[in-house]
Amino acid sequence: MLQSFNARTGEVFGNDVLVTSSSELETAIQKAHHAYADWQSSDGETRAKLLNALADAIEGDRENLVKLADTETGLGLPRLNGELDRTAFQLRRFATLAKNGGAFVFTDDPAVAGGPPVGHPPMMRVRVPLGPVAMFSASNFPFAFSVLGGDTASALAAGCTVVVKAHSGHLHTSARVYDVASKAIQAQGMDEGLLQMVQGAGNQVGVALIQHPLIAAGAFTGSTRGGAALRDAARARPRPIPFYGELGSVNPVIATPAALKKGGDALVQTLAGSITLGCGQFCTNPGLLVLQRSDESTNFVLALVEALKPLKPHAMLTKAMRSALDQGTAAQIEAGAKPLLYTPVDEVCPNPYLAEVDAKTFISQSQLHEEVFGPATLIVWTDSVAQTLEVLNTVGGTLTVTFWGAEEESADVQKLVRGATAIAGRVLFAGVPTGVAVTAAQQHGGPWPSSTEPMTTSVGDAALDRFLRPVSLQDTPEWLKNREGRPC
Amino acid sequence: MLQSFNARTGEVFGNDVLVTSSSELETAIQKAHHAYADWQSSDGETRAKLLNALADAIEGDRENLVKLADTETGLGLPRLNGELDRTAFQLRRFATLAKNGGAFVFTDDPAVAGGPPVGHPPMMRVRVPLGPVAMFSASNFPFAFSVLGGDTASALAAGCTVVVKAHSGHLHTSARVYDVASKAIQAQGMDEGLLQMVQGAGNQVGVALIQHPLIAAGAFTGSTRGGAALRDAARARPRPIPFYGELGSVNPVIATPAALKKGGDALVQTLAGSITLGCGQFCTNPGLLVLQRSDESTNFVLALVEALKPLKPHAMLTKAMRSALDQGTAAQIEAGAKPLLYTPVDEVCPNPYLAEVDAKTFISQSQLHEEVFGPATLIVWTDSVAQTLEVLNTVGGTLTVTFWGAEEESADVQKLVRGATAIAGRVLFAGVPTGVAVTAAQQHGGPWPSSTEPMTTSVGDAALDRFLRPVSLQDTPEWLKNREGRPC
Repeated sequence: MLQSFNARTGEVFGNDVLVTSSSELETAIQKAHHAYADWQSSDGETRAKLLNALADAIEGDRENLVKLADTETGLGLPRLNGELDRTAFQLRRFATLAKNGGAFVFTDDPAVAGGPPVGHPPMMRVRVPLGPVAMFSASNFPFAFSVLGGDTASALAAGCTVVVKAHSGHLHTSARVYDVASKAIQAQGMDEGLLQMVQGAGNQVGVALIQHPLIAAGAFTGSTRGGAALRDAARARPRPIPFYGELGSVNPVIATPAALKKGGDALVQTLAGSITLGCGQFCTNPGLLVLQRSDESTNFVLALVEALKPLKPHAMLTKAMRSALDQGTAAQIEAGAKPLLYTPVDEVCPNPYLAEVDAKTFISQSQLHEEVFGPATLIVWTDSVAQTLEVLNTVGGTLTVTFWGAEEESADVQKLVRGATAIAGRVLFAGVPTGVAVTAAQQHGGPWPSSTEPMTTSVGDAALDRFLRPVSLQDTPEWLKNREGRPC
Repeated sequence: MLQSFNARTGEVFGNDVLVTSSSELETAIQKAHHAYADWQSSDGETRAKLLNALADAIEGDRENLVKLADTETGLGLPRLNGELDRTAFQLRRFATLAKNGGAFVFTDDPAVAGGPPVGHPPMMRVRVPLGPVAMFSASNFPFAFSVLGGDTASALAAGCTVVVKAHSGHLHTSARVYDVASKAIQAQGMDEGLLQMVQGAGNQVGVALIQHPLIAAGAFTGSTRGGAALRDAARARPRPIPFYGELGSVNPVIATPAALKKGGDALVQTLAGSITLGCGQFCTNPGLLVLQRSDESTNFVLALVEALKPLKPHAMLTKAMRSALDQGTAAQIEAGAKPLLYTPVDEVCPNPYLAEVDAKTFISQSQLHEEVFGPATLIVWTDSVAQTLEVLNTVGGTLTVTFWGAEEESADVQKLVRGATAIAGRVLFAGVPTGVAVTAAQQHGGPWPSSTEPMTTSVGDAALDRFLRPVSLQDTPEWLKNREGRPC
């Protein structure tokens, strides 16, 4: 039996929710498998129709959904309304992509006369959907990375069907989104198996889902530990399948002294806002500030402390996440970080945390490389560009690196850009890493530990590619050629 | 100490070769790491210059190389001359790709005004090379999947440097190719670290190579067992890295009775030739012939037996591979296959092997799903299209499926095309799977167990993509924007 909680009060909220039984799980997967038989060969118009209907459906129930989500997550109405907007936007964007043939892009490679290696038969390189996909919702985005989130939207657009495991942090929101989605699917006269939902706490339902022989891929947003466990389960199958895990990230911000001076108080306020936004519960939260020792850097940090002091983040999503934050900050201090702003409270709402450490200690203490999820940032002091590069190399993998002060080309700037691109999925040269645009050029996924498949993205148009496998067709018959990239 | 053998006589050939020591391995990797610092930001012209020089170099030493390879592999001069042609062709094709900017393709995504989710800052999605790559040569292609093979060519074109582990089946050929390559690199005034070579038997050198912290990816062509071991080593690193393994495959051929009748004796001869070509030592060797019971099918099989009888394959590459073939065929018979052509000989050259089994037995006996490397094919008899689909589903993953008889669209043909594309990287509608064109639309890689990364290909232009990771640049400074896709 699962329980939902009011994020602000910690009290039990609403009715208990049943854990999906083995036989219910089997039924859900069989339905998704059955629906896949036709959906895999659906055209772009049909896919767009479904995705647009799903966007309309959540917008149509906005008031109820946002209210429910606010109770279960404490994220507040403005944020949740914005997130619902984003979720509808994503669904419609993948609808447009599908309609415009994004899933059916192919390489036509006509025959070349003569023997090998120059000559070859006529070939087409098309893409086929993978099959029914297992989707694992995130705690921190009850709409945008959940039942009808970007993973679901991109998988449906690719021609896959979806079995989504709801996150236990927002059970009733998930159930209502699923109910609204199911009705929209039914109203379109489409197969209910296109989208199925299961519920469970811990790993049991999730592992059974990802290891089911009819499941062809997995997509996950959440912690490195949780993602690694499901990735390992996906790999332990007799037939391993792709598993796209978007995991933890420390998102270093590096800045030249000149950039800090130029940015002034506006930059201080922007960074303080990014650290505390949504109580720091973003995978792109700036957890590391790498500064070269200088007066400008010292002044910036003093101002940052002052800017953070009055900020009062809201409650965290769950009690477990709150205690993980407290443990994480304490562990940093234990490992040698010196707190600049550290006022642990027993209250529901945590205070912002800021600490500092020298680069050598940072590099040598693996505890300091771990993401601390919440409004917590560690400042790392370096003596040189070379040492900043060492720090980046120690981080190894991250969703983002932000680099303030790269306006002019120089040997040092070049090196830092290389160091940043070597470890990140996205490199920003202005602004803050929170806020991930849903657009053509987005890359949300970097080297381990920030994701399990760094060649892919979980946000933006290219998210579609995760669910389409290339297949060459050789000497393709005319009828099949005429399907223009829809090979089945 | 490693020894080379004459593939035809089994006698020791040439001098002993030293196993690369730990310190030599470290030096090789450090050199590749050092060379990467500049190579990652080289332009297309420079990469093309190197790759073209390498193609010229092996062609310039053709006579010696082919003679050496013939002694060590027994593959014969015509095949080896053809393979050297292919290897040079591959190098030049990736040179052209690099010159034309294939590694620097990027998505330009200008700013959209307004707030999220619609508005966003200016973004570019570029690709960065991964770093120094570990390359593992194949036994069966001493040139095309070896020191200067497609993996090396595509990695260099992508801006990576390469440390290749030579295959122990052709030590002297590898050493000579490497020597020729090193001289060509030197003659261009380029860094010797662009390409390094190590030697070793068993897994020790290979595991040390793939687990070295400076190695950023691995590429492998060979057995499922060997590939799985290296893949696991790559994943067991503190920082896991991509590992592209092109492994074993049974390459089912399915055919309608009408297609067999229409194809007549020409089709019989073509298939017999494909089964025995190169002594069956191709990853695309047709190991499974799935036929629906019919008079046409029976006649085809009778004719195939007669066509195979007089064919005398040459010696296998190594004694170990020869005994694996004998064990594999014996295991099939043990598991219920009935031999149609089975004359085990103690001689160096194996005879072609053909056996048959009913679909039910095939499906239930996992031993029958394993690739038998060599001139060996198993016929599976099915009673219906549904049963043929079950057989394909049992195979699960394969580099190719060949489907004779798909000229006209029908519900059954549709189902079989879907069944074929669901498990294969390439689906052929004419001809035989041996012979893999190096071209834009090639896909050489399918679901497990045929490869570790089925979304990628090890042959053809898209092989380049394996070594380039997408990175988004946000609010990119002008100077960096002007590098047009070369972000570092």
